[in-house]
Amino acid sequence: MRRRDVLKGIGAGAVAAGISACAKKNEVTASAGSGETFSWKMVTTWPPNFPGAGTGAVDLAEMIENNSAGRLKIRVYGGGELVPAFEVFDAVSGGAAEMGHGASYYWKGKSEATQFFAAVPFGMNAQQMNAWLYQGDGIKLWREIYEPFNLIPVPAGNTGMQMGGWFNKEINSIDDLKGLNMRIPGLGGEVLARAGGNPVTVPGSEVFTALQTGAIDAAEWIGPYNDLAFGLHNAAEHYYYPGWHEPCATLECMINKTAFESLPQDLQDIVFTACAAVNDMMLAEYTAQNHRALRVLREEHGVIPKPFPDDVLRLLHKLSREVLEGLAENDATVRKVYESYRSFQEGADDLQRITEQPYFDIQLG
Amino acid sequence: MRRRDVLKGIGAGAVAAGISACAKKNEVTASAGSGETFSWKMVTTWPPNFPGAGTGAVDLAEMIENNSAGRLKIRVYGGGELVPAFEVFDAVSGGAAEMGHGASYYWKGKSEATQFFAAVPFGMNAQQMNAWLYQGDGIKLWREIYEPFNLIPVPAGNTGMQMGGWFNKEINSIDDLKGLNMRIPGLGGEVLARAGGNPVTVPGSEVFTALQTGAIDAAEWIGPYNDLAFGLHNAAEHYYYPGWHEPCATLECMINKTAFESLPQDLQDIVFTACAAVNDMMLAEYTAQNHRALRVLREEHGVIPKPFPDDVLRLLHKLSREVLEGLAENDATVRKVYESYRSFQEGADDLQRITEQPYFDIQLG
Repeated sequence: MRRRDVLKGIGAGAVAAGISACAKKNEVTASAGSGETFSWKMVTTWPPNFPGAGTGAVDLAEMIENNSAGRLKIRVYGGGELVPAFEVFDAVSGGAAEMGHGASYYWKGKSEATQFFAAVPFGMNAQQMNAWLYQGDGIKLWREIYEPFNLIPVPAGNTGMQMGGWFNKEINSIDDLKGLNMRIPGLGGEVLARAGGNPVTVPGSEVFTALQTGAIDAAEWIGPYNDLAFGLHNAAEHYYYPGWHEPCATLECMINKTAFESLPQDLQDIVFTACAAVNDMMLAEYTAQNHRALRVLREEHGVIPKPFPDDVLRLLHKLSREVLEGLAENDATVRKVYESYRSFQEGADDLQRITEQPYFDIQLG
Repeated sequence: MRRRDVLKGIGAGAVAAGISACAKKNEVTASAGSGETFSWKMVTTWPPNFPGAGTGAVDLAEMIENNSAGRLKIRVYGGGELVPAFEVFDAVSGGAAEMGHGASYYWKGKSEATQFFAAVPFGMNAQQMNAWLYQGDGIKLWREIYEPFNLIPVPAGNTGMQMGGWFNKEINSIDDLKGLNMRIPGLGGEVLARAGGNPVTVPGSEVFTALQTGAIDAAEWIGPYNDLAFGLHNAAEHYYYPGWHEPCATLECMINKTAFESLPQDLQDIVFTACAAVNDMMLAEYTAQNHRALRVLREEHGVIPKPFPDDVLRLLHKLSREVLEGLAENDATVRKVYESYRSFQEGADDLQRITEQPYFDIQLG
């Protein structure tokens, strides 16, 4: 697939060509190596120096600067440093910054469909999600939705599977979800509400205190790596449950389209390639750091993650489907995205069912 | 982690910095943009235009050329076009080509330890493997082993979990493995031998004929995507089993170290970043294309993959451990690599056990 197609967001194609924009072979583009330099700002939704997601955004900027030999310099701002975290989308759309890093479900106020490009309850894991984005219609649909905002979204990081959260009491049955005040945003929160719980919005920086003071009964944050760093094991009882609401969270780099198009071809290519590299390496970081942190939580803090009872998970699974279908019924854009997502997931699950799932049943035995 | 550390292969660090070599910030390296151009050759172990692995190598070369605005051009050769497939390592080591693309288990004649950087029976899947490579000691150890050959190895692609192969008879018990003539190379073959089978070496191009004529009873190749392209469903009875011997196969880009060091800093960075990007996108391609091909095999060719009986898998699991420990006992380099691999895998499996595995039990249910 050639660059013009990628930029139009036309799906599937050869591996790297799906991202690499292509100058004609054997031909140096006009402005490449001309020494023209660009100074950009990247605003992010992450607290400064936030491990994983936030440091990944910094790495992305550094990679682009290095690969361009300093021709494209990008200064990275944590949430609140230049604009508040949840104004990143508007800031990049309006051109106050050329680039942003966050997660697309933060922008559901723009379109409910944005949530499908970040995390879906009982949706796809990281490997499946990347397959849909690069090789299915994922990126194409995502671009269509961001296009009216003069934005180009690019996958640029993944947390892997998130944990289900910290609870101040044991969840033994469906009844224990009723009336539960839980910090759980987005689609997961809507599912909890259907199960009789009260999803509450609490910014990351306030999760610890809200949990410790009993203002909320439970909170999901990310996973062992970030949860340990936040000290959540000191804020809640040690009821720590695996996840279901974010089987992965894809992070995004969004680029102001006008700014992007002002770059020479090779710098455009460098930006896309670096996003794919960070997409690979951040998932590796989360996978490694989550298991290290899990060990620390277990061995030094006595935390033993518990599985949710099967009937609780089955209910959440059923309610998740209802929430998604309800959204799709009421919104033509969601319907289009959901159909593509769901049909791809069915195929990916067919594969998972005969490959990794039975394999790990033996391996983890 | 800074470039000098990465090049020395010193493990773990920030996400992208683990690959991005770092020129000092705000400083254009001496030769960057000087217009100096390089023309390299990349020899590969893949048949020309081989879908996935081979086209991924072509994409890698194209990405590097585009990101460097044509300053680093790389001509890609299929196996046998410039040197035979299994001479890629020596060709790049000796400088006949500056770059190679293959899989490190092909080089077990150089060191048995190379196999751990490609695929291990009952070893890690792609996500876990990337975590070990980038964030554990994986890349560090890999570089140590390639160092005496003047080579720098870089992860550059992954097939995901491979299938267990095509069989001309049903495998109902351990006894059915005895005397089985099967095309299965590497460590998987050694495990089969311990189970009483006869592993046979057959080049990819001859698998179809060997299976069709009954010269062999069974053959593993890669997975639905490549197996369908080879027409293996027309060569064997339709006994198609899931895998255990290659829960992923990491592919490699190897670079002649002298050639690499002759590049200006920004081109070195571009090469590393493009490898990580291809590492991300090739796995997505395999994941998407495998499930599409699986559907075709099922719906158009009546192939229904069967699970191996549990006792067969458990025996293979046990024998795999014995093979690995036997190797480690006899070879100090293998021992060092195996210890690092196994201990990382245990942590990664701890995480898998509480996250994706129970999640998919419900999701796939």
